[in-house]
Amino acid sequence: MPSLDDQWFTEVFQDEGTAFSLKVTRKLHEEQTPYQHAEIYETETFGNLMVLDGCVMLSSRDNFLYHEMMAHPALFTHRNPRRVAIIGGGDCGTLREVLRHPDVEEVWQVDIDERVTRLSETWFPELCEANEDPRAHFFFGDGVAWIKDAVPDRFDVIIIDSTDPVGPAEGLFSAEFYRDCHVALGDSGILVQQSESPLLHTRSIIQSMHRDMREAGLSHVHTLPFPQPVYPTGWWSCTLASHDNPLVYFREEDAAERPFVTRYYNESIHRGALAQPQFMRDQLEG
Amino acid sequence: MPSLDDQWFTEVFQDEGTAFSLKVTRKLHEEQTPYQHAEIYETETFGNLMVLDGCVMLSSRDNFLYHEMMAHPALFTHRNPRRVAIIGGGDCGTLREVLRHPDVEEVWQVDIDERVTRLSETWFPELCEANEDPRAHFFFGDGVAWIKDAVPDRFDVIIIDSTDPVGPAEGLFSAEFYRDCHVALGDSGILVQQSESPLLHTRSIIQSMHRDMREAGLSHVHTLPFPQPVYPTGWWSCTLASHDNPLVYFREEDAAERPFVTRYYNESIHRGALAQPQFMRDQLEG
Repeated sequence: MPSLDDQWFTEVFQDEGTAFSLKVTRKLHEEQTPYQHAEIYETETFGNLMVLDGCVMLSSRDNFLYHEMMAHPALFTHRNPRRVAIIGGGDCGTLREVLRHPDVEEVWQVDIDERVTRLSETWFPELCEANEDPRAHFFFGDGVAWIKDAVPDRFDVIIIDSTDPVGPAEGLFSAEFYRDCHVALGDSGILVQQSESPLLHTRSIIQSMHRDMREAGLSHVHTLPFPQPVYPTGWWSCTLASHDNPLVYFREEDAAERPFVTRYYNESIHRGALAQPQFMRDQLEG
Repeated sequence: MPSLDDQWFTEVFQDEGTAFSLKVTRKLHEEQTPYQHAEIYETETFGNLMVLDGCVMLSSRDNFLYHEMMAHPALFTHRNPRRVAIIGGGDCGTLREVLRHPDVEEVWQVDIDERVTRLSETWFPELCEANEDPRAHFFFGDGVAWIKDAVPDRFDVIIIDSTDPVGPAEGLFSAEFYRDCHVALGDSGILVQQSESPLLHTRSIIQSMHRDMREAGLSHVHTLPFPQPVYPTGWWSCTLASHDNPLVYFREEDAAERPFVTRYYNESIHRGALAQPQFMRDQLEG
C-alpha cells in the first residue's frame, strides 16, 4: 500500500474507520488558544487549511459549499430577514455570505474563541472581507449564555455554525439551547444548524436533533444535504427549524435574482437540497 | 500528525493532492487478472472493499448511491425502457438496479474482465442476486467493439459504468464511441455515463464529455451530481445524453410509485439531482 509521509496532513476518524488526507507544502502556523489547539497548513491543491484540535475545519478551496449552504437557504426561506445571529462561525465565512443579502441590517457573530477569527483574518482574508461592514458585530464569548440573555423576538435567523457535538460545542446540540433560540427568534424566525454527515449520522445525531428541535417548539424541521469534500464522507448537511415556517417553500424568485455571486448555491440547488434521500425519509419520517 | 499503519488501505490521488483511507481488518483476496490487479479487503466499517489497480471501485456500505444513480434516473427518463446495455459494470450492482424495473425485458452486461464479475459473486453476493434473472445476459469482451457491432436502434438505454478515463476505459470517453452508442440507441434512446467529480473534473472531464456527446449527435446533455464517499472528494456524477429527450422531465409519478426498494433514489432526489451547482452552470452553460 502507498504510505503517507510527513508531507501529508491526515485526519483519522477512528470511530468511522476512515481517514482523509491532504498533501501539505508547509505548516504556516500553530498555537494553543485558550480553547483549542489551532494549526494552519498550506496545502498543495486545496489552498490553506485550518485544523482545530486535529479536526479539519475548512480549506480555501471547498469552504464555499458549506458557507453558502449555512447562509442562503435559511435567509431565502425567511420572508424578510433583517437581524441575524451566528453562533460559532469564527472563521467569518458564514458572516460574509449573510452580509451579501442587502436587506440584512444587522449580524452578530458570537464565537467563544477570538483567536479563530484573528487566524482567519491572517490566513483566510477572503472570508473576512466583510468584517468591516458596519452591519457586522462581534462578540467573543459563550453563545449558549448569549442566546439565553437575548430579548424575545430579537432575531429573524439564528445560524449555529459550530464544531462537532463534543467538547465546547456540546451545549449547542440540546433541546434547552433550541428553546432559548426559539424565544430569541419568536415563532416566525428560522434556526439553522450544521448537522454532520447524512451517511454516518442520520441515526446517531440528525434524528435526535429533529426530536430536540421539535421539543423546543420548532415543529417544522428539515435537513438539507450538500457536498463537503474535507469533512467525513464528503457529504454534510444543515438542518433548518421553525415554529411557523414550513421550510419547504422559499423566496425562489429572489434566490434566482440574487444580487450577488455564488459558486454552489442557486434557486435550483436550494430546491434540490430539500429532497430527502430515501434512507433519510425512512429514518426521519418513517 | 497521526500516521496510518498497515491496518489501513489508502488510495492516494497524487494529482489531486488528497488521499482517502479505510481501516481494514484483513485482505480477503488478491490476484492479477488478464486486465488489472484486483484486491478485496474486509474493512472495519464499510463492509467489503474492491480495489482495481490500486483504485477503490466500491464498498458494501456506500455503493448503493452510485448504482442507484447510474440506473434509475436514466430508466425513469426514458418513456418505456425495455432493452438496456451496461458497458463495464462487472460488479453487477448496476445490473441489479436495472432489473428492478419490471418492464425491462433484456439487459446485456458487457465487461472486458470476467474476473471482476466472479470476484463480485464471491465477495459482493448481494450485488449479484439478480444475475440468474432470465432477462440478464453477459458478454465478456470489448465494449467499444460490441457497441460498434450492435444493430441500429437495438437499445433504449446504454449505461457506461466504467473505470476512470485512463487505461482500459479510455476508449469509452470519446466522441467516436458516443456516435456508435447513438446509432445503437437511435434518436429516442438515452445514454448515461459515470462522469467523475464535479469539484475536480468539471473543466477537465465533464466539459469535454458534454462537447463529445453533442458532437455525436446527442444534443441534450445533463450532468447529475450525487454523493459517493469512497471516491475522490466524496462527490461524483453521472451524465445523461440523448438526441430527442430533453432529460429535464422524467416519469415522476412512476418513480414515486416504483415497485421496488431504494436507499438513495426517489422522485425528489431525481429532481434534485437535475439542479446544477452554480459553478457547473457557469462552466458548462456559460
